[in-house]
Amino acid sequence: MTLLRSWIETANDPECPFPLNNLPYGVFTHKDSAPRCCTAIGDKVLDLGGMQRAGLLEPLGLTEPALNGLMEQGPEAWDSLRVTLFGFLGEGSDAAAMVLPHLFPMEEVRMHLPFRVSEYTDFYSSRHHAFNVGSMFRGPENALPPNWLHIPIGYNGRASTIVVSGTDIRRPMGQIKPKEADIPFFGSSRRLDIELEMGTVVGQPSQMGKPITVAEADQMIFGYVLLNDWSARDIQAWEYQPLGPFQSKAFATSISPWVVTRAALEPFRCSPPPREVPLLPYLAEPGPMLYDINLSVTLTPSGRKAPTTITRTNFREMYYSAAQQLAHHASSGCAMRVGDLLGSGTISGPEKDSFGSLLELTWGGQEPLKLADGEERTFIEDGDRLSLEGHAQGTGYRIGFGECTGTVLPASGLPDF
Amino acid sequence: MTLLRSWIETANDPECPFPLNNLPYGVFTHKDSAPRCCTAIGDKVLDLGGMQRAGLLEPLGLTEPALNGLMEQGPEAWDSLRVTLFGFLGEGSDAAAMVLPHLFPMEEVRMHLPFRVSEYTDFYSSRHHAFNVGSMFRGPENALPPNWLHIPIGYNGRASTIVVSGTDIRRPMGQIKPKEADIPFFGSSRRLDIELEMGTVVGQPSQMGKPITVAEADQMIFGYVLLNDWSARDIQAWEYQPLGPFQSKAFATSISPWVVTRAALEPFRCSPPPREVPLLPYLAEPGPMLYDINLSVTLTPSGRKAPTTITRTNFREMYYSAAQQLAHHASSGCAMRVGDLLGSGTISGPEKDSFGSLLELTWGGQEPLKLADGEERTFIEDGDRLSLEGHAQGTGYRIGFGECTGTVLPASGLPDF
Repeated sequence: MTLLRSWIETANDPECPFPLNNLPYGVFTHKDSAPRCCTAIGDKVLDLGGMQRAGLLEPLGLTEPALNGLMEQGPEAWDSLRVTLFGFLGEGSDAAAMVLPHLFPMEEVRMHLPFRVSEYTDFYSSRHHAFNVGSMFRGPENALPPNWLHIPIGYNGRASTIVVSGTDIRRPMGQIKPKEADIPFFGSSRRLDIELEMGTVVGQPSQMGKPITVAEADQMIFGYVLLNDWSARDIQAWEYQPLGPFQSKAFATSISPWVVTRAALEPFRCSPPPREVPLLPYLAEPGPMLYDINLSVTLTPSGRKAPTTITRTNFREMYYSAAQQLAHHASSGCAMRVGDLLGSGTISGPEKDSFGSLLELTWGGQEPLKLADGEERTFIEDGDRLSLEGHAQGTGYRIGFGECTGTVLPASGLPDF
Repeated sequence: MTLLRSWIETANDPECPFPLNNLPYGVFTHKDSAPRCCTAIGDKVLDLGGMQRAGLLEPLGLTEPALNGLMEQGPEAWDSLRVTLFGFLGEGSDAAAMVLPHLFPMEEVRMHLPFRVSEYTDFYSSRHHAFNVGSMFRGPENALPPNWLHIPIGYNGRASTIVVSGTDIRRPMGQIKPKEADIPFFGSSRRLDIELEMGTVVGQPSQMGKPITVAEADQMIFGYVLLNDWSARDIQAWEYQPLGPFQSKAFATSISPWVVTRAALEPFRCSPPPREVPLLPYLAEPGPMLYDINLSVTLTPSGRKAPTTITRTNFREMYYSAAQQLAHHASSGCAMRVGDLLGSGTISGPEKDSFGSLLELTWGGQEPLKLADGEERTFIEDGDRLSLEGHAQGTGYRIGFGECTGTVLPASGLPDF
């Protein structure tokens, strides 16, 4: 696959995240307008809601303030819309005059949460991440739990606090028990962390009581977002036994404003690593189900301009694919819904500078990271701006996700208990 | 508090679950009608949607197919509707003629899921249950996890498979690893269980980033339902480390069709047990926050008519109240939403015949229960009908929840992997 050229010249820049090949979906407002669906092309946002209202597009739910309506239309409608947009936006199109009134400069619009999140599930599917975390807590010989090589381990997360990139994040409070203390105290987290993840957006439902195959699961996926699963490690350490993470993760999860479609990522599929033990047949993959997507994270302290890249990794570092995670999720008969969001789990590569969390990058806070401007970090400090970036690199073009950022605010005061 | 008499005579029977004191809310259809909100009075269902449409009630969202609209109106509106209904239905009311066309015999209506469940969280807050389960897995000396006496432990559950009483339950499939095996297989659960719980229905939201007090949490609660958190113990045992239960619980959760309001339960508030260690101030209770509600479960094998009562316990057996659970849930800044459902956790009393799960009642399947008609059970068999019942006992009246039932169907076949 090479660059698909557009008459919007900025889209043809090889470093532009939004060439015609991409066409990610989001929700925007311009000044006081109502929120509606859009796509990105070059340095412009194309108002799909406006085009539908003008009769240029079929009624596909594009005037809604969320992508759920479009997702409900199903894969054929998604493909058909993509082809229609190629026609409108491709080099030599005769539709430019009709399209022009619906283009907005990207810097003039505000992006919103792209879809109503039905439920949020977070997985634990990166081999290196699971090994690192397990090593820290149980030693390298017992690092992987006995089920890890058989199950794409996941747990239900909290959907009410999923926010779009750019939303400030309030440092959470919670129960914390220092190692040397007998009892916990209630206070603000001192070990606030990121988790670099991709999020899978489920675009089609499955029925209650009816498991699905990995191939069916793959077809239900609408697209992917960048996802930062903010985590309070001190709250997590005290609360998570025996039933898993709860308030340590519930306070915020950030996602990118753009959902990059499965269609745009097709050229970047790649195979999983060799299986260390055979997988059960219900997890068998009909083809390559991982994606080659470059990921990185920067940290910018308050008042500084220079971001420091603290990690670089790749989505292909997963042991289990999103389709396998989704098939496992439905395996008990659990009904999946349009708008479900699946976090990949923290994506860590094999090298120390490719780990997806500060917990791993600073090895439990023991080895501070050096930042530009001479500062150091173990965990996140108030005012820090964390930003995830991701793109798949094609020949002469890239499929970008934009940014997923958040700035950490000090904890709120205690309510008057 | 004594019986509030109604001109609907069946509501004055001391054993009727739905006297005027109760007025639980639900959603019903009659023949081919659209679903809408209702209350129960004696052996009748009162069509609140119809009364709103007829101008007899304020516009409170009662024509909607879910209670969420009513809940969004807030506590003052809830109180005011209750007072209005006392006026319509109380003995000596002059409104009987206006009300009569909106009454339907209960046996002619079909009840639906009473509200759109935003998110579902399940807790682990019964001391005896936690001790029993811990004893089985870790021995009585290590039964309670170190955090248990400090935190109302909870985990996020799956909302998409919450169903109303009467819905058949498909036996789940999943990964199971027998103790003697090296690797798991994928098959249908052989240790299918109930969990006898109460569900708290959150009727008012809290803001992201803003913890709430226990007193505020209490005021956000709209009401309570019976809840059966169906659980596959064999799937759970293999999957739950390190991140908690997932597919072992995700296949189904049943709730009663009636939401009994906090107002109706006010006379039944009672105090928690003595605290074994002091609670942190954010969990301090401003008054009695538990409820005295009798609970029982029956099991009826397929083709048999005689149900066997397999346990009797009481909601006052909780260590943490629903208000404490909700305050803890929001403590990190997690936003709570209208329609959130909080499971209490399995409610077990101190005696062997007051345990809230088959896991405990048969002590891990080692001590089968004897049923009427001579059958025995360790875990649930296909065709078994499980039914939860609950009521608060007043002087000469009771506040009933109706039933929460489900019949277990055989597992679906494997998809063609």
